[in-house]
Amino acid sequence: MKDLKSYIRTIPDFPSEGIMFRDITTLFGNPAALKHTIDLLFGHFRNDRVQVVAGVEARGFVLGGALACRLGAGFVPIRKAGKLPHQTIEESYQLEYGEATLEMHLDAFGAGDRVLLIDDLIATGGTADAAMNLIDHLGGDVVGAGFVVDLPALGGAEKLRSRCDKVVSLVSFEGE
Amino acid sequence: MKDLKSYIRTIPDFPSEGIMFRDITTLFGNPAALKHTIDLLFGHFRNDRVQVVAGVEARGFVLGGALACRLGAGFVPIRKAGKLPHQTIEESYQLEYGEATLEMHLDAFGAGDRVLLIDDLIATGGTADAAMNLIDHLGGDVVGAGFVVDLPALGGAEKLRSRCDKVVSLVSFEGE
Repeated sequence: MKDLKSYIRTIPDFPSEGIMFRDITTLFGNPAALKHTIDLLFGHFRNDRVQVVAGVEARGFVLGGALACRLGAGFVPIRKAGKLPHQTIEESYQLEYGEATLEMHLDAFGAGDRVLLIDDLIATGGTADAAMNLIDHLGGDVVGAGFVVDLPALGGAEKLRSRCDKVVSLVSFEGE
Repeated sequence: MKDLKSYIRTIPDFPSEGIMFRDITTLFGNPAALKHTIDLLFGHFRNDRVQVVAGVEARGFVLGGALACRLGAGFVPIRKAGKLPHQTIEESYQLEYGEATLEMHLDAFGAGDRVLLIDDLIATGGTADAAMNLIDHLGGDVVGAGFVVDLPALGGAEKLRSRCDKVVSLVSFEGE
């Protein structure tokens, strides 16, 4: 099959001017590309005895659900504020464009559980950092973080490596 | 394993008073229950030559991503207004509590593609009906609709059967 990158569509000025939005709905929509994406992530983490895949709303849910099933793990949603129905913990953080708050259920998993963080993209790393804080707060043992797209110019993946040994991304956009 | 229903947590008065919210994050978080859920949905639709799984934001993304991979199909997100970056079609509808608009990319799939609709829960059927309108608009051939939870007292699944032959749910709450 073609390079995964070729399935990702770039949309200029979304959600605001100057942002080159990397749209992976075109990758998700292609059966071979979606399967290959999950196969690759599975290959990276299959031997890490993952018990919990924590996926970040909303695109991280698509990847995280598929990968959790493949790994034989549970899936835990990390959501925007106000969406989770039970008692939560929360973390606010700066986005590339704006500010946001993430929440996770207080009883999402047990202390010592082996947790893999999954999202579609890592840019400045603000979202991933906040998600890691949530996982740490519950005493999770972070085995790694997986993304489809890395924007290395923004430094997020590099920063994340200081708190997590295994940071994996499948595709990199170097500001093209 | 235990009945799937036993993995679903009920939270009274969320998101508003009088609503008994069926929280499936507790099902998602259990590896065996998540796997069993996807196995059951896969069993129902494995012979329907599904090409596209259309999942409704956000819990439908978890199920839809996993099921698309399992079926060898693509995944198409049906999202809340303003979230999709490319050209969209939209449908507004009444929720059990409030009003909402759903969007799908105009180029999400081709006319005649075999589409399976997936969401976590069917209540009054308003969301599913709007999602079906979006799929119809693009000329999709709806092969079925799958849900984890049905609330039959609200009549949504029954209504949906008038426009879709195969409506599957795994767990039913009869107003308990």
